[in-house]
Amino acid sequence: MLTKTHLYQEIHQQPQVLATLLKAELPVIKKISKAVKARDVSYAMIAARGTSDNAARYAQYLFGAANNLPVALATPSLYSIYKNPPRFENALVVGISQSGKSPDIVSVIAEGKRQGALTVAITNFPDSDLAKAADFTIELHAGLEQSVAATKTYTTELAAIALLSAVAAGDDTMLATLAQVPEQVTRILSLSSEIARAAERYRYMRACVVIGRGYNYATAFELALKIKELNYVMAEPYSSADFMHGPVALIEEAFPAIIIAPTGLMLPEIKNFVGDLKRRGAEIIAISDDAEMLSLARTPFKIPVTTPEWVSPLTSIIPGQLFAMHLAKVRDYDVDKPRGLLKVTETR
Amino acid sequence: MLTKTHLYQEIHQQPQVLATLLKAELPVIKKISKAVKARDVSYAMIAARGTSDNAARYAQYLFGAANNLPVALATPSLYSIYKNPPRFENALVVGISQSGKSPDIVSVIAEGKRQGALTVAITNFPDSDLAKAADFTIELHAGLEQSVAATKTYTTELAAIALLSAVAAGDDTMLATLAQVPEQVTRILSLSSEIARAAERYRYMRACVVIGRGYNYATAFELALKIKELNYVMAEPYSSADFMHGPVALIEEAFPAIIIAPTGLMLPEIKNFVGDLKRRGAEIIAISDDAEMLSLARTPFKIPVTTPEWVSPLTSIIPGQLFAMHLAKVRDYDVDKPRGLLKVTETR
Repeated sequence: MLTKTHLYQEIHQQPQVLATLLKAELPVIKKISKAVKARDVSYAMIAARGTSDNAARYAQYLFGAANNLPVALATPSLYSIYKNPPRFENALVVGISQSGKSPDIVSVIAEGKRQGALTVAITNFPDSDLAKAADFTIELHAGLEQSVAATKTYTTELAAIALLSAVAAGDDTMLATLAQVPEQVTRILSLSSEIARAAERYRYMRACVVIGRGYNYATAFELALKIKELNYVMAEPYSSADFMHGPVALIEEAFPAIIIAPTGLMLPEIKNFVGDLKRRGAEIIAISDDAEMLSLARTPFKIPVTTPEWVSPLTSIIPGQLFAMHLAKVRDYDVDKPRGLLKVTETR
Repeated sequence: MLTKTHLYQEIHQQPQVLATLLKAELPVIKKISKAVKARDVSYAMIAARGTSDNAARYAQYLFGAANNLPVALATPSLYSIYKNPPRFENALVVGISQSGKSPDIVSVIAEGKRQGALTVAITNFPDSDLAKAADFTIELHAGLEQSVAATKTYTTELAAIALLSAVAAGDDTMLATLAQVPEQVTRILSLSSEIARAAERYRYMRACVVIGRGYNYATAFELALKIKELNYVMAEPYSSADFMHGPVALIEEAFPAIIIAPTGLMLPEIKNFVGDLKRRGAEIIAISDDAEMLSLARTPFKIPVTTPEWVSPLTSIIPGQLFAMHLAKVRDYDVDKPRGLLKVTETR
C-alpha cells in the first residue's frame, strides 16, 4: 500500500521536519552569518551532487538576489581526480550532502579549509566526514530518509539555504515568510489524490522535459531527477531560455512539457514560452498558483498557496514529488527501491 | 549531397579557422592577460547559452586547473529579469556568444562594466552588442556560420579559452600543444566515412546519454546538444559521477551510452564507470584514443591522435560532430535547418 511506503511517509513528514530545522538551526546560522561578515567574502563556492546539487542551484539565485553574493558550483574532480584545485581567496565554501559521505564533496570542503576559507557543511548527519571537515554544520533534522529518492532532505536543504540567506540579509520579512512554509506545504500535500488520478494519463510517457527558470530552475532539475529515479523516464530539465537555444527542436506533437510557474517576476516570461511550446504541439503539465497559467495546461496542478517567488521552490516541488511518486505507483514500480540505485552514492 | 551542406563544410573548415584564431588573437589575449594580472581577480564569471555555455564548462576546468582560477557560470535572469545582480568584486566577467546578440548575455557584461569589473567578450562578431559592451573582445575568426547547429564556432570558442589560459599561465608547452590542434583536427576528420557507416545502426535510437567528466564534461554537453538539435533524439549529458547519483536508474538492456574518454587522469575512472554500465546492459559507443577503452565499446570511434588531456576537448568533439551529422543524414533530416530552430536565438 502506497501510504505504507517510506517515500509516501517521508514526503508527508516535510511540514514537520521543515519546522524543526527552521527553529533548531537558527542559532548556528546566526553564527555563520556573523563569520561571513567578519571576512572579505566575495563569492560562494558550493560542492554537491544529485538532489543536493539542485539545492545548490537554488542558492545560486537566492544568494545572488537577496545577498548580492555570486555563487559558483564546484567541479569536484579538480580536487579529487586532477588534484589541482583553484584558489579560494575570499570564498565561502559550502558542501551539501544528505549523507555527508561522498569523498569528492568532502575533498572540496577539506581543500577550502586547508586554504583558510570559511567552510560550511549542510547535511543530515552532523557526525559525517563532511561535517567534520567543515568549520560550521547546518543539520537538516530530516530524520532518517529511507526511500532512495530524496524528498524531505531536499526541502530541508532548501530551507537551510533560505534561512542562511534571510539571516545574512537581516531581513525579518524573509524570516516571517519562511515560518509560513511548513503550514503551506501541508496544504499542498492535500493535492495527493488529485495528482494520483492525473498520473494515470502518463502511464506510457517515455520522455518529457521539465522547465523552470530563475528561482525555480532548481525545481525543474529536482523534479526531472525524481521522475528519472522513480519512473526510468528520460526527463530533461531546462531553463526556458536555454531550451530555446537548441533543445526546442525536440518538441513534436504531444511531447509532454512540465512547467514550473508560480507567481513572480518570471511568470510572464514562462507564459510566453508556453505559448510557443503549444504552437509546436507540446502537451503542457503546469504546476502553478496562477489561473491563467493553469488554463494553458492540458493537466494543471493548482498550488493552493501564493508565496513570494524567492521561497516558491520550497512549495512548488511538492506537487512534483507527488506526481513522480504516483506515476511510479501507476506503473507498478517499487517507489522505495528504484532499480539500480543505492541510497548513499560515493563518488570520487 | 551531404558534402554541399553548410554543416559538412563548416565542420571541415575547423582546421583552418582554428589556425587563424590562434595566430590572430594572440596579441589581444596577451593584453587581456596583462589586464587580469594588474587587478585583484579572484574568480571568473562567465555568461553564455547553448553551445557557448558548453565552451564555458571547459573554462571551468581549464581556468581552474591551469590558472587556479575558480569559475562561476552566470545566471543571466538575475540581471535581465530580476534586475538584482550580484556584486562583482574581484571578478573577471566573460560573455561568450557566437552572434553577440542575446540580450541576457549582453546584460551580464554591461553590469560587470557598470560595476567596474574587467570584461571580455568572446564572439564571432566584433561589432556586436556584446563586443561593444566589453573592455576586450576575442574574435573567433570562424567566418560566417550558416548551419543552425554550431560546430566551428564551438571549437574556436574552446581555442580562445585555451589560448587565454596558456598565455595567462605563461606556459610555452601549452602554446606549443595548442599549435598542433589544427593539424590533429584534420587527421580526425578522416574518420568521416567510417562514422557514416556506423551511424546506420542508430537510425531508430530514441534516446541516449552522453557521458564525459572533467575537461570533457563540456564535450558530453556539446555532443548531446548536437544530437538533440540535428536528430530530435533525447540525448542527456552527464558527468559519470553525477550519473551515479540517480539517473543511472534509466539504464536498461541496450540503452545507448556515448562515452567521451580520451587518455588522461580521468580515463581509469571512466573505464570503471563503463564496466558498471555494461553490467547493467548498456550499449557503449566510445570516442577515445585508448585501445582498452575502445575494446569495451560495441561501437568504437578511435581518435587517431593522443593529446594532453586539457586540450582533448578540442579534438574529442570532432568524431561527435561527425556522428551527429551522419546520423541526421541516415534519418533523412535537413542537417542545415533543424526543425523549429533559428540561427540566432535572442532570449531575455
